[in-house]
Amino acid sequence: MDFKQYITIVEDYPKEGIRFKDITTLMQNGQVYKAAIQELGKYASELDVDVIVGPEARGFVVGCPLAVEMEKGFVPVRKAGKLPREVLSVDYGLEYGKDSLTIHKDSITKGQKVLITDDLLATGGTIEATIKMVEELGGVVVGIAFLIELSYLNGRDRLSQYNTFSLVTY
Amino acid sequence: MDFKQYITIVEDYPKEGIRFKDITTLMQNGQVYKAAIQELGKYASELDVDVIVGPEARGFVVGCPLAVEMEKGFVPVRKAGKLPREVLSVDYGLEYGKDSLTIHKDSITKGQKVLITDDLLATGGTIEATIKMVEELGGVVVGIAFLIELSYLNGRDRLSQYNTFSLVTY
Repeated sequence: MDFKQYITIVEDYPKEGIRFKDITTLMQNGQVYKAAIQELGKYASELDVDVIVGPEARGFVVGCPLAVEMEKGFVPVRKAGKLPREVLSVDYGLEYGKDSLTIHKDSITKGQKVLITDDLLATGGTIEATIKMVEELGGVVVGIAFLIELSYLNGRDRLSQYNTFSLVTY
Repeated sequence: MDFKQYITIVEDYPKEGIRFKDITTLMQNGQVYKAAIQELGKYASELDVDVIVGPEARGFVVGCPLAVEMEKGFVPVRKAGKLPREVLSVDYGLEYGKDSLTIHKDSITKGQKVLITDDLLATGGTIEATIKMVEELGGVVVGIAFLIELSYLNGRDRLSQYNTFSLVTY
């Protein structure tokens, strides 16, 4: 399936010169959304996955349906202040300024094999922070799956020691 | 399945006297998460649903896997500034202050039958705002599904003219 035709390019968003990749038009189409998740599932089924981890909010739109398809658990990574129990927190650099991500400390057990998911691989900052948290909790990152990869931002270079998969590449 | 045993009660979060219902421990268990989505799917399969709509971020953890299970599209409702194309915006009251929710204007077509999903029905403010947006775009709300309902907050009273379902009630 040519998934690209369902992704909308929004010119100059969020600022001039950026060609934003809008996946909401892909998700709006039930057959295409399911097919996309199933393609990621094919990749994931060749790994030995115990649990799926994804950062909010767009990591949820990929990771949650994939978890249910694969009958695996899903562990959310959220912005500071959103998770109710004891968390591990990691600062990560944004284009402008800093933010922190959190994960429940008891959400990953030592040696658990983790698949990380997100909608988009850009520079890789969010995913790097997510990997750091998973590994600090003792998890083993066996794969990382994206709907979209912006190859010209070279995010993959930061993930070179990991097994990664992108459904669509620009 | 007794879903309640997988939901963690966190005392005094986010403030004293509140017994927060934490669904992350339910989602962490792949079999239980899938069973929960399938139960919502049974409810939804008796309605005539064209598309599923859910507010970020926790509406995604219910609505996205349900959409993929049912092979229906999913339309996200997001906080202001997060959706890249032309949006309809609705203010809604929070316990403290106000916020606004947005939806892409072209995401619902006139007469489309919409199932709304969220993780939790509390006072019903977020869902009321979501209904308002869907109806303003011409959609018909055929059902509203929650993982959890806090019946003592009487949110259901605000939704009395709609068909609603909650997997677990406190």
